[in-house]
Amino acid sequence: MSVHPDLPSWNDTPTRQAIIGFVHAATDEHGPAFVPPAERVAVFDNDGTLWSEKPIPVQLDFTLSRLARLAEHDPALAAREPYRAAIERDYRWLGQALVKHYHGDESDLKVLMRAVETAFKNQGVEEFAAEVSGWLRDAVHPVLKRPYLSCGYAPMTDLLRYLEAKGFTTYIASGGDRDFMRPFAERIYGVPPERVIGSALGLDFDDQAEDTRLIYKSHTEFFDDGPQKPVRIWSRTGRRPLVACGNANGDIPMLRFARTGERTGLRLLILHDDGEREFAYTAGAEDALARAQTHGWTVVSMKDDWASVYGDR
Amino acid sequence: MSVHPDLPSWNDTPTRQAIIGFVHAATDEHGPAFVPPAERVAVFDNDGTLWSEKPIPVQLDFTLSRLARLAEHDPALAAREPYRAAIERDYRWLGQALVKHYHGDESDLKVLMRAVETAFKNQGVEEFAAEVSGWLRDAVHPVLKRPYLSCGYAPMTDLLRYLEAKGFTTYIASGGDRDFMRPFAERIYGVPPERVIGSALGLDFDDQAEDTRLIYKSHTEFFDDGPQKPVRIWSRTGRRPLVACGNANGDIPMLRFARTGERTGLRLLILHDDGEREFAYTAGAEDALARAQTHGWTVVSMKDDWASVYGDR
Repeated sequence: MSVHPDLPSWNDTPTRQAIIGFVHAATDEHGPAFVPPAERVAVFDNDGTLWSEKPIPVQLDFTLSRLARLAEHDPALAAREPYRAAIERDYRWLGQALVKHYHGDESDLKVLMRAVETAFKNQGVEEFAAEVSGWLRDAVHPVLKRPYLSCGYAPMTDLLRYLEAKGFTTYIASGGDRDFMRPFAERIYGVPPERVIGSALGLDFDDQAEDTRLIYKSHTEFFDDGPQKPVRIWSRTGRRPLVACGNANGDIPMLRFARTGERTGLRLLILHDDGEREFAYTAGAEDALARAQTHGWTVVSMKDDWASVYGDR
Repeated sequence: MSVHPDLPSWNDTPTRQAIIGFVHAATDEHGPAFVPPAERVAVFDNDGTLWSEKPIPVQLDFTLSRLARLAEHDPALAAREPYRAAIERDYRWLGQALVKHYHGDESDLKVLMRAVETAFKNQGVEEFAAEVSGWLRDAVHPVLKRPYLSCGYAPMTDLLRYLEAKGFTTYIASGGDRDFMRPFAERIYGVPPERVIGSALGLDFDDQAEDTRLIYKSHTEFFDDGPQKPVRIWSRTGRRPLVACGNANGDIPMLRFARTGERTGLRLLILHDDGEREFAYTAGAEDALARAQTHGWTVVSMKDDWASVYGDR
């Protein structure tokens, strides 16, 4: 476990060498693989790629506290999913809803998403951001027992900084909610709000008062997963990414988009194989792992490639 | 007509002084109106704000050439609007469609938009960008008889550079098509693709071949005008703008959004009163001009405040 000036939280494995080799080639002005700085776009999934997503995504834990509050004085609501699961903090029901979604069964996810969409109806964007920040100040990961604010992967922030130092522009491109990520993405990852791409609730412009506000509708504008990821990346950046990093089947289109005939990007897939320091699972990543094998994507083993997961363990 | 180190294409009028005064206050670390650099977001409408929009917006001229080609071998299509207008370059029909839209009558605009949406169905985003760049290389303004590439307002590029030098991040926030503007926004205005906000056709992710593509659908995802402008600005930047600049009624929500109780932004409204060097008109801007009077927005007179319109006249 030696410390490297570039990517210090990484072990010196073939994976680390592949990353550095790719970046050297893309930034070598006289080499055949040179890419001008303006086109060096790197996109990163968030949940399971930049921070832990088990037993449930952090956003869901945040939303649960709100759903539980909404159902507090309404026994009929409290008996229904997902309000029941929210009140009882039943991570099992919630976790399986996501696993079913990964396998193409949307039924429970729809029940969940409908409640999630309704939970913030008519809230202003700035009030929502303040609520997220306030909740995250004290929220603790239910299994790891560490603050959520310390659940970011140190090797990934190393990678963000390394790429930025090499002239890349980094973006988060997550299935998670854009406005949920924005209040903490800069603090945890050093990525400012304008470079956070994610799912979005529809917005209404409320101009009744002299001070105008943007308020959330109770329906999703788009769910930034699967084939929507390349669409949203193009909408926001106007570029095809050169580096794409994910960990699940929903990231496959984004990783594929990082390649054209003329130019092959760096495709990184985080493998959760470290039950000791984090969680060990491949559910929801089977197709992505298979494609990594057949298409030369670089698989990152948390166990072997990372000297540290959270910086302190 | 003296030349100033800041905003050299502007005359030294109260308007220029208001802009500089506002920027000084926002960047004075010890003053009460200080705004941190990250929150210094400046948004600019495009057509009629950064370049000329008469007799018709440039994008429409580009689309006309494509519509004319589509109807070339189809007499039935060629007899219908807007194909007839496209073939005959009938700017009058097209201009009135937009004026009717400004006054709330969408009928002709809908006919036009439907054809525009269909015109690029299944084209890839990168092919579209190449087509726009190719067309703009030779295209000439039909009245001004100067290349469209030289139809940007010199005082506005001065203003973009001045704000950037003062720590602002500049964005284009236009009703025009986002992907139409991206191929030239950097060249004319120095604004890169990731900072171009505009209307958008829906996109499909085509992954049939090994090389994936994004292709246009034949319907609009959103029309970035009126109340959609603040929505799109928030979606892209995650910030409320500090400076907003427009020229028409569709810019009112964007300009209003640049103010909260705690913080009043700089709202600039370009007044087209220079029939000598550009065009003189207020149609479609009546409400905005009225609001400028009652709410202290800064009206920019092209005739009085600009020493030069295009840099050479």
